[in-house]
Amino acid sequence: MSSEPLLEQFIEALRCLPGVGPKSAQRMALHLLERDREGGRHLSTVLDAAMERIGRCNLCRNLTEQETCSICSNDQRDSSLLCVVESPSDVMAIEQATGYRGRYFVLMGRLSPLDGIGPAELGLEDLAERLRENPPGEMIIATNPTVEGEATAYYLQRMAQKNSIEVSRIAHGVPLGGELEFTDQSTIAHAFTSRQLVET
Amino acid sequence: MSSEPLLEQFIEALRCLPGVGPKSAQRMALHLLERDREGGRHLSTVLDAAMERIGRCNLCRNLTEQETCSICSNDQRDSSLLCVVESPSDVMAIEQATGYRGRYFVLMGRLSPLDGIGPAELGLEDLAERLRENPPGEMIIATNPTVEGEATAYYLQRMAQKNSIEVSRIAHGVPLGGELEFTDQSTIAHAFTSRQLVET
Repeated sequence: MSSEPLLEQFIEALRCLPGVGPKSAQRMALHLLERDREGGRHLSTVLDAAMERIGRCNLCRNLTEQETCSICSNDQRDSSLLCVVESPSDVMAIEQATGYRGRYFVLMGRLSPLDGIGPAELGLEDLAERLRENPPGEMIIATNPTVEGEATAYYLQRMAQKNSIEVSRIAHGVPLGGELEFTDQSTIAHAFTSRQLVET
Repeated sequence: MSSEPLLEQFIEALRCLPGVGPKSAQRMALHLLERDREGGRHLSTVLDAAMERIGRCNLCRNLTEQETCSICSNDQRDSSLLCVVESPSDVMAIEQATGYRGRYFVLMGRLSPLDGIGPAELGLEDLAERLRENPPGEMIIATNPTVEGEATAYYLQRMAQKNSIEVSRIAHGVPLGGELEFTDQSTIAHAFTSRQLVET
């Protein structure tokens, strides 16, 4: 370690956290030192373990410290449904919000050739193999509705169709509790073209 | 460690940081795991060292990993000035904002009899000894202008006067860049009673 005072090194090190600037880092450091050393020690231990031991699930590529994550190794989950998402936070969001009980595949990114992210970087070869060897009944595409997410969705759709797997995409439109007045134009346009007939 | 998935333990442990709720903790954990493992490992090391090694300066009571902090052990600082503040963050604020080159005494709190914080908890006996043995020319009181801070300031003032040490308090009034319209009533009232004659 450098010869800088440890307190300053500590404040500086906290800035690796997203959204933490000099003021918040200082507040965090002083809070832990003055009021919660126990919590700080615990965080240090868990942080170290997480950095060293958390890797990728060998089936779905999600973050886990085990070889196969708890969702993939859970027999109770419906293996006829496969939901493809961009990131681990998407899995957490879906798990918290829905009653979905199928499996996942986590791309850890989206197709973005300009940034050098192609099918190989997203593990799409593993996914293709899985679709061939162990095809689900339905593949649910839940990539984000951005330009790159859309391109990725199209690529995934082709992959599934090649293996004659039914494909669906989660619905995009005006969010619940939202107001048309404050919804952006492209969302409204999409909501109009994706309108569904109401059964009477 | 418990049998909960390490990722969840990690997100939970991050919540010991002030102002970090479930969503931010998740974002921080995923950021470190996906994009900055090196920073996370460094933070873990420094955090552990900080929790174990940072204690109090034996002279000014500020946080430091040395026996005497870098300000107290700096011969270049003017030992005829002693600024008394409530917390380490006050020292940092004064160091960053002013050209003050004197010494500090950090109370680590303020007098608050209802919470069981009396002169002993604030190290005022050490301060009294210091004022007797090694009296500064001027003691600058920079406690916060709250009810408890004011009571503390009054106590400190009495201590200094007992040792015939000159006492000053930092100015309180309308902040620079502030507008009278948006300044609270008690600050305006204080600014009026503390008005100073302009020399012509």
